[in-house]
Amino acid sequence: MDKLSSLAKFKSSCPFLARTKASTLRTLCTKASPRYPTLSKLTEKATGCPIMGPALQLRSGQIVAGYASVAGSAEVTKIHQHKGVYPDPTSANIEMCPHASKALAAARMAEDLAKAKSKASLKEKAAQPSTSKSAAATGCPFHAEGSSKVASAESAKRVVTPGGFNYERFYMDEIEKKHQDASYRYFNNINRMADKFPIAHTGNTKDEVEVWCANDYLGMGNNPVVLETMHRTLKTYGHGAGGTRNIAGNTGMHLALEEELAQLHRKPAALVFSSCYVANDATLATLGSKLPGCVYFSDTMNHASMIQGMRHSGAKRVIFKHNDLEDLESKLAQYPKETPKIIAFESVYSMCGSIGPIKEICDLAEQYGALTFLDEVHAVGLYGPHGAGVAEHLDWDAQLAAGNSPEPIKGSVMDRIDIITGTLGKAYGAVGGYIAGSTEFVDMIRSYAAGFIFTTSLPPVNVAGARASIAYQREYLGDRRLKQLNVRDLKSRFESLDIPVVPGPSHIVPVLVGDPALARLASDTLLAKHNVYVQAINYPTVARGEERLRFTVTPGHTVDQIARLAKVVDQTFTELGIKRTSDWKAAGGRANVGMPDAQPVDPIWTDSQIGLADNTAPKTLRTGQPRVVDTRAVRVTREKFNDLLGPYIEAPVMAEATTVTVQRPSFKITETSVRAPAAISATA
Amino acid sequence: MDKLSSLAKFKSSCPFLARTKASTLRTLCTKASPRYPTLSKLTEKATGCPIMGPALQLRSGQIVAGYASVAGSAEVTKIHQHKGVYPDPTSANIEMCPHASKALAAARMAEDLAKAKSKASLKEKAAQPSTSKSAAATGCPFHAEGSSKVASAESAKRVVTPGGFNYERFYMDEIEKKHQDASYRYFNNINRMADKFPIAHTGNTKDEVEVWCANDYLGMGNNPVVLETMHRTLKTYGHGAGGTRNIAGNTGMHLALEEELAQLHRKPAALVFSSCYVANDATLATLGSKLPGCVYFSDTMNHASMIQGMRHSGAKRVIFKHNDLEDLESKLAQYPKETPKIIAFESVYSMCGSIGPIKEICDLAEQYGALTFLDEVHAVGLYGPHGAGVAEHLDWDAQLAAGNSPEPIKGSVMDRIDIITGTLGKAYGAVGGYIAGSTEFVDMIRSYAAGFIFTTSLPPVNVAGARASIAYQREYLGDRRLKQLNVRDLKSRFESLDIPVVPGPSHIVPVLVGDPALARLASDTLLAKHNVYVQAINYPTVARGEERLRFTVTPGHTVDQIARLAKVVDQTFTELGIKRTSDWKAAGGRANVGMPDAQPVDPIWTDSQIGLADNTAPKTLRTGQPRVVDTRAVRVTREKFNDLLGPYIEAPVMAEATTVTVQRPSFKITETSVRAPAAISATA
Repeated sequence: MDKLSSLAKFKSSCPFLARTKASTLRTLCTKASPRYPTLSKLTEKATGCPIMGPALQLRSGQIVAGYASVAGSAEVTKIHQHKGVYPDPTSANIEMCPHASKALAAARMAEDLAKAKSKASLKEKAAQPSTSKSAAATGCPFHAEGSSKVASAESAKRVVTPGGFNYERFYMDEIEKKHQDASYRYFNNINRMADKFPIAHTGNTKDEVEVWCANDYLGMGNNPVVLETMHRTLKTYGHGAGGTRNIAGNTGMHLALEEELAQLHRKPAALVFSSCYVANDATLATLGSKLPGCVYFSDTMNHASMIQGMRHSGAKRVIFKHNDLEDLESKLAQYPKETPKIIAFESVYSMCGSIGPIKEICDLAEQYGALTFLDEVHAVGLYGPHGAGVAEHLDWDAQLAAGNSPEPIKGSVMDRIDIITGTLGKAYGAVGGYIAGSTEFVDMIRSYAAGFIFTTSLPPVNVAGARASIAYQREYLGDRRLKQLNVRDLKSRFESLDIPVVPGPSHIVPVLVGDPALARLASDTLLAKHNVYVQAINYPTVARGEERLRFTVTPGHTVDQIARLAKVVDQTFTELGIKRTSDWKAAGGRANVGMPDAQPVDPIWTDSQIGLADNTAPKTLRTGQPRVVDTRAVRVTREKFNDLLGPYIEAPVMAEATTVTVQRPSFKITETSVRAPAAISATA
Repeated sequence: MDKLSSLAKFKSSCPFLARTKASTLRTLCTKASPRYPTLSKLTEKATGCPIMGPALQLRSGQIVAGYASVAGSAEVTKIHQHKGVYPDPTSANIEMCPHASKALAAARMAEDLAKAKSKASLKEKAAQPSTSKSAAATGCPFHAEGSSKVASAESAKRVVTPGGFNYERFYMDEIEKKHQDASYRYFNNINRMADKFPIAHTGNTKDEVEVWCANDYLGMGNNPVVLETMHRTLKTYGHGAGGTRNIAGNTGMHLALEEELAQLHRKPAALVFSSCYVANDATLATLGSKLPGCVYFSDTMNHASMIQGMRHSGAKRVIFKHNDLEDLESKLAQYPKETPKIIAFESVYSMCGSIGPIKEICDLAEQYGALTFLDEVHAVGLYGPHGAGVAEHLDWDAQLAAGNSPEPIKGSVMDRIDIITGTLGKAYGAVGGYIAGSTEFVDMIRSYAAGFIFTTSLPPVNVAGARASIAYQREYLGDRRLKQLNVRDLKSRFESLDIPVVPGPSHIVPVLVGDPALARLASDTLLAKHNVYVQAINYPTVARGEERLRFTVTPGHTVDQIARLAKVVDQTFTELGIKRTSDWKAAGGRANVGMPDAQPVDPIWTDSQIGLADNTAPKTLRTGQPRVVDTRAVRVTREKFNDLLGPYIEAPVMAEATTVTVQRPSFKITETSVRAPAAISATA
């Protein structure tokens, strides 16, 4: 057989693999990274290997095995020669061999996959456990005694101080816990292509998949006015900001973005952070530690960044039941009125798609003298006539009428919220996060929050891209409307197929699976068999037993793609024997799916807001149709950059422009003798 | 007078300003933001206004007054008309008027400046306090009763719940503390121009200054291969990553950057974070909370991010004296050998320029069974034959000989360090931070650190730019060498002029001022009079009484620029009566300046490492000479992107390329009717 001769040839080139039996080799080889030349050659030959799970059979090597990068992918042979791995093939220097290190991770992954498969009701189920065990029992140098053997091999790397703590073993034990409860994360290599949205290529640039779980909710990451603005900014200001906001990293682009954000939310001020994780963490940590005797009231479903921030503040934290106003009020009432209180909650809860009762929480806050801290991370860009979020959406008519005025609308929900936090990294397709609120509040955070003060500010190029995106979305409703149409379409298709959508009023389409290994297997199957990328969401992101697939649909997905998705998800549910809505109903329900007393949930975007009432709704896309870009919104956006970038001038069309021209007359390109020596071979 | 008629005209258009007296108006008008059309018109006329301090007289409006952005800069008049500020000009809605809000901040700033000036021994000193007081005493609507009046006006904005806590007043009190101890930060608007490095424009695009304090230490933010790679990546992959690393945000660019970083440090693995602040915070918080009974040993000068991380971990933290091995050892010895311990320290301490005793700390760590956590943030890119940092630099010959091999050099300092953290935002001119270490360590942090898991990953475009920068610097020594030559030049010029440089072996050039207000005034004077931008470094970044100017010199600064800088700093020291080295010596010394027992400090870059011994040192630049770009390093760097971006093809030269062509055939640009209504006027 071709395969065996290839294996044999390869075995002779690596002392570790030479010692392994064929069955083990098969396990190892099937999971190698494509960036790994010697092992990937093996992978090629190994298609059809009986051990490989269905998810990986067609797309082997596309998941980053064991995740962590191993140095020297291109230099395996050199490393062997150079560092003497051959002469001394003892288990103590296993990690010196990059083959072994990758193979180790691969074997572990195969084991995890096999475990998942054995959970699924597959026809070939019987064959799985034995092969998984065989890998562990046939003399695999990495697996012979399970993880303890691995631990001793790894920890040999650094001599443990006699009597000292064994750090490497500790790390391995912590990782092992993740494997044991199936919460260990394998990262898929997904490269979203700007000119083929929503298509991405995998580790292989020729291998394309549809992306169904990104948070670039509107496809603004490839909006032409965003990219054009970024190219211009990159040319004008280069890459990094070069310092903190206080030291050389405060540019006109930063100030303009903050002004844009303040206007968007009709607040006096805004402040940009590296991410909204940092914004939430830094702001809540600073507020809670500064306000004397502060008490946090935190929704039980709040995001990790808010939880961290409240913890870091050292302030008392009272948890109230998800969206439960009665529970919140009973807890607020237990504290004196003069006690500083902060109610921290979200508008759209991203993993279940529920929406917080913002107006009612404002009522309670005013009654009990509490601040409101609203995380609009999964809502900005997506809700409201100008994309300011759910708080804006709730006063649709008044907010629409007020246009782009920066003035607060007295008594509106958005005006009543004290602190809004949002991200630039999701619907705006950029990176970074922010807070918006009163001038004094923002200035206080600016002056005291370590996570803001002591960090390099975001590059002008990203800040400009984010602002272009916000400006465009303030002017144009079409993307938000089309997104909601597509969400309605997907949800109704799923529902008609008895696929258990977690009901909710937002754009999130969570589909309950209810088991971590099965959720991952479903995700892998969709990827491997159907070119559909949707990540499994497991603990700790959701509660155990509520594992799910979380679909996101954008205005860039076509009707045909949505129809096909529904079909292949249905097939996969059947193939893997995953519970349907009717199964959950029979079992009494879970995560709001199939609950006995369930009421239908209305979407927050009404027919008339989408434009269905007056026939102004955008047209959904068919295969091959280009997305709509609004020229008026582009024009308004461009004009905002005139002061810093100059007026936009249409570039002459180049017939075969494959690259971008960058002219830099101030540089002299020259070969010099001042350089670091290159080759390993110089010292071999 | 022209000026008075202009004032009069303006007064009539704003009810708040109409009520103020001329003297107050003068204070207010001189500090308006240039983005503020009506007030900036005033500013124009006000040049020469007797109240304005020297720092602002020539460059008025360039510092962002009172920092926080006010909404609606372009729509002041509309806002007045629309929201009825005119009909009801009571103090309760002062903040409704953007003039007033800006003016409020400006008045405060003028006061801070006047305070600073009164500290300096200026000839015109006598005139200052009275004018500052006059502003507070002449019926200024914002200042009449000092900050308490302001507080009541501000807090009127949101009705305080009866009996509830007054949050707005609390914020103001916290900000007031910053004003009181002169630690309130005004951010300068500095826009570093890619094609004029190291020149930036201020809030006015025509107004240019030299930047002398950015942390883009090598000018890599505008290196042509970095920008070219970024333009290509932006075109291929768009802007944002679109998700966390686990959900759609893990690309080949991310994996390749981590492999590059692992190779750079000759470690098995690396992991990229939003920033090095986040990397330090998340890693130390995770390690300390996971390792049972962990004790941190932390250098007293450690960066805020490390301090936060250790605090957030909840682990015990023992502080040892800066770079004091005896103190460290005596503290390590107090804990049992089996107790997990982490020694957290830096290679280059950025505010004093000292360098940690890395090798000796490794000795202690091995003896006492501790992990070493080394922050190389201000060293990566700048030290070592390949830019891997001071740990690499310490084994120069062996590291040089090993070329770009990813293999560890057994027994080398870099190999002995367990955990290295670095930034992409300083010498690499990009954004982001990272850790490098063992496979299991990195995988453990990847699997548990909330600050890594729950955040959108960096955009591919930045990640690609960072990798290009690292790859280039691994291949080319010239920038590091030229930087050190320029640092030597500047330090020796300062020393010969009796300017108090804090002595140190690194590239940092800190100049002691010893007073916060004076440090800021020196910074403002250099900016206003000499076009030199160097930020004052005050508490909490440095200890009180050790306030300083911190200069950074790059390979892009010319000899002529360095010579002029020394001259104007000398003039400014004389003008403001700032203490010289000889003054500090007479006073017994401070911050290592003028210490009685001072020994000369050798730079860590030796003559032979710079190439002075064998005449391979790069040539310093004269005015008008272009910077050197190494074609071999460019070629090697480009090749690394072939797999994802395809081979680089030289673009046809365009005679008048003012913009960049972005072709996107998949978009249809069209005007549609689906848009948000635009005008305020529609509802007025």
